[in-house]
Amino acid sequence: MARIVQKFGGTSVADIGRIKAVALKVKREVDAGHQVAVVVSAMAGVTNQLVEYVNGVNPIHDAREYDTVVSTGEQVTAGLLALALQEIGVQARSWLGWQIPIRTDDAHGKARIIDIETDELERRLALGEVPVVSGFQGLAKDNRVTTLGRGGSDTSAVALAAALGADRCDIYTDVDGVYTADPRIVAKARKLAKITYEEMLEMASLGAKVLHARSVELAMKRGVRVQVLSSYKDEPGTLVVDEGEIVEQELVSGIAYSRDEAKVTLVGVMDKPGVAAHIFGPLAAANVNVDMIVQSVSPDGKTTDITFTVAGSDLARTVDLLEKQRDNLRYRKLVSDAGVAKVSVIGVGMRSHAGVAQRMFQALADKGINIQAISTSEIKVSVLIAEDYTELALRALHSVYGLDSD
Amino acid sequence: MARIVQKFGGTSVADIGRIKAVALKVKREVDAGHQVAVVVSAMAGVTNQLVEYVNGVNPIHDAREYDTVVSTGEQVTAGLLALALQEIGVQARSWLGWQIPIRTDDAHGKARIIDIETDELERRLALGEVPVVSGFQGLAKDNRVTTLGRGGSDTSAVALAAALGADRCDIYTDVDGVYTADPRIVAKARKLAKITYEEMLEMASLGAKVLHARSVELAMKRGVRVQVLSSYKDEPGTLVVDEGEIVEQELVSGIAYSRDEAKVTLVGVMDKPGVAAHIFGPLAAANVNVDMIVQSVSPDGKTTDITFTVAGSDLARTVDLLEKQRDNLRYRKLVSDAGVAKVSVIGVGMRSHAGVAQRMFQALADKGINIQAISTSEIKVSVLIAEDYTELALRALHSVYGLDSD
Repeated sequence: MARIVQKFGGTSVADIGRIKAVALKVKREVDAGHQVAVVVSAMAGVTNQLVEYVNGVNPIHDAREYDTVVSTGEQVTAGLLALALQEIGVQARSWLGWQIPIRTDDAHGKARIIDIETDELERRLALGEVPVVSGFQGLAKDNRVTTLGRGGSDTSAVALAAALGADRCDIYTDVDGVYTADPRIVAKARKLAKITYEEMLEMASLGAKVLHARSVELAMKRGVRVQVLSSYKDEPGTLVVDEGEIVEQELVSGIAYSRDEAKVTLVGVMDKPGVAAHIFGPLAAANVNVDMIVQSVSPDGKTTDITFTVAGSDLARTVDLLEKQRDNLRYRKLVSDAGVAKVSVIGVGMRSHAGVAQRMFQALADKGINIQAISTSEIKVSVLIAEDYTELALRALHSVYGLDSD
Repeated sequence: MARIVQKFGGTSVADIGRIKAVALKVKREVDAGHQVAVVVSAMAGVTNQLVEYVNGVNPIHDAREYDTVVSTGEQVTAGLLALALQEIGVQARSWLGWQIPIRTDDAHGKARIIDIETDELERRLALGEVPVVSGFQGLAKDNRVTTLGRGGSDTSAVALAAALGADRCDIYTDVDGVYTADPRIVAKARKLAKITYEEMLEMASLGAKVLHARSVELAMKRGVRVQVLSSYKDEPGTLVVDEGEIVEQELVSGIAYSRDEAKVTLVGVMDKPGVAAHIFGPLAAANVNVDMIVQSVSPDGKTTDITFTVAGSDLARTVDLLEKQRDNLRYRKLVSDAGVAKVSVIGVGMRSHAGVAQRMFQALADKGINIQAISTSEIKVSVLIAEDYTELALRALHSVYGLDSD
């Protein structure tokens, strides 16, 4: 017997028919003798509708009321799934965040889970009852409903699995696992049987939107084994686990990319101490996330060029901010380019192997792809290239690191 | 300064535009210096959608899960109205049933309010904040959400007004008050400035669906002054109050009717003690509500005919039940007729005046309308007539009791 937390996202519970199908998936685990707790998201589209209502009434809204409104989506699904389980003979009841309670801090709209009280859930699991928990929500100290931010139901599931000491947290979604690359682009991409938390985090932050990054962080911190699998197919997915669980570690686990990138270059900036702080201070204050930064060597020792990237959606704001600071920063010219993409090679194996980056640069050079910026971490090498070359780069790298399926 | 509870029903909060209009109505009372608490229903259509989901998943459902699902409609409206009020500068916050809490018994789906804790609401009212309370819902002893049954938000509002000792409970709806008769039928119907609780109860139970009967009972019991008024117009509605508040009491306050009636006659029933119990026992057990009962005088002293009415929607079930009992009841023939209507004359004034019923019978006879059954209470005379004569009867009676507008 194992203890399993199952999480079903919005498309998995999109309508009454899908909710009934989910009930069967839960029943199968129960019938296999497992103790099962379930976490659900709102039915697909419901949260967007509720957010639209809130913005329609009051665009600059009280986050506490926002939470009161948008948390209802998960409440509806929890009740409906409990009913669907009862209908097929599985003991079940719904649990709202405030009923358990799932205690959070009071950062309404993006709260963090502090603690989950599990005594009553434990008692019911032991009796064979399936708790169906509303994801995405909790209770703040002031007795008001909080929500965890978009995608927060993944975090609810991992936190519940940690609190219950579950053997596994199965995240059912509309993809059937984590791939070595986006299969829509790289036809030879393979589904990974296992991936480490660190690699998954890099994937998540690079736009492979399989799991919410915060839920992966939490799983890593609390040692929760997470499985990503399809709610449509009937096959194992990808296990996200600790490095120690992966016996044969590949050098590179996957190639990720992000098109939501924009490049900004300030030409002819004074090359003196403190200039970087002058540039990036106002951007940080305005909540603009700066990613790669490249400073070119100053030929005359007086001025230099500084290039950096921001999210494509932040470009207009970034340019505006910098132009307002022009007198202060004293740059000669501002050049921006939204037609760039970031391509990354990810793998914990590169910690112990040299030459991973070099092989990447060579492969791109062989295809005539110019590298505009580079950034690296312990388990990742990212390069910025012209967006038009994205697919070509992905396929070349996938092949060069031996990831292609047979 | 007065303390007012305002209740807005589903059509009053049907969309974002209507919710903003409601916020202005609340603001006007606040600006006039009053302390205001608001009770809201779900946006029109939402509850029906949720009930449909529940029935789609599990037709014979756990009422606790039903309550978990359908109570979300009022939660959404409460949050949205609080936001709309904040947007126009009125201090407001939403309150869910479990947050106040509004304690109920554990009869899920049709719970009754036991107690409302008001300390925190009192404190905030004193500070000028407007509590926006989700109607229709409460909290049972087992910490689960209950609902009060369809139309229950009226009851929530009256109960809150009683608990807060409010000077008035304003029920905003899509009609602008209580009329002497249905204005769609009787063109000369007048809006009543005041009506007593007892009369309103008779109206409600007779199909004039302005207020939920339970809310009127509660208002009467707790002495809450209720005003029914339009959320579209800007004029006073009808006050539902104690008899003592109405100085010049009319003989008759209104003429009500119900088309949802059916007549059943058992011909040739043995005329002996206990036969009525034999007939009506099984109907009561099957939750069929029997209204008027007429037993004809037995010509031979051996058999008699028994006629009674049930709701039209119960007719098929009633006939089925009685046919199954035929051997037991030993009647000669069963005759049923769904083409009947009940017309009632209502007024507390008839307590102290004789001849009200006689005037009714005469007026109907003058129009050639045959009376098929009669029932009376202290403040009401009802007759059963052929349904085709309903409009004719209503207009004739409205005129005969001097209710026509000039």
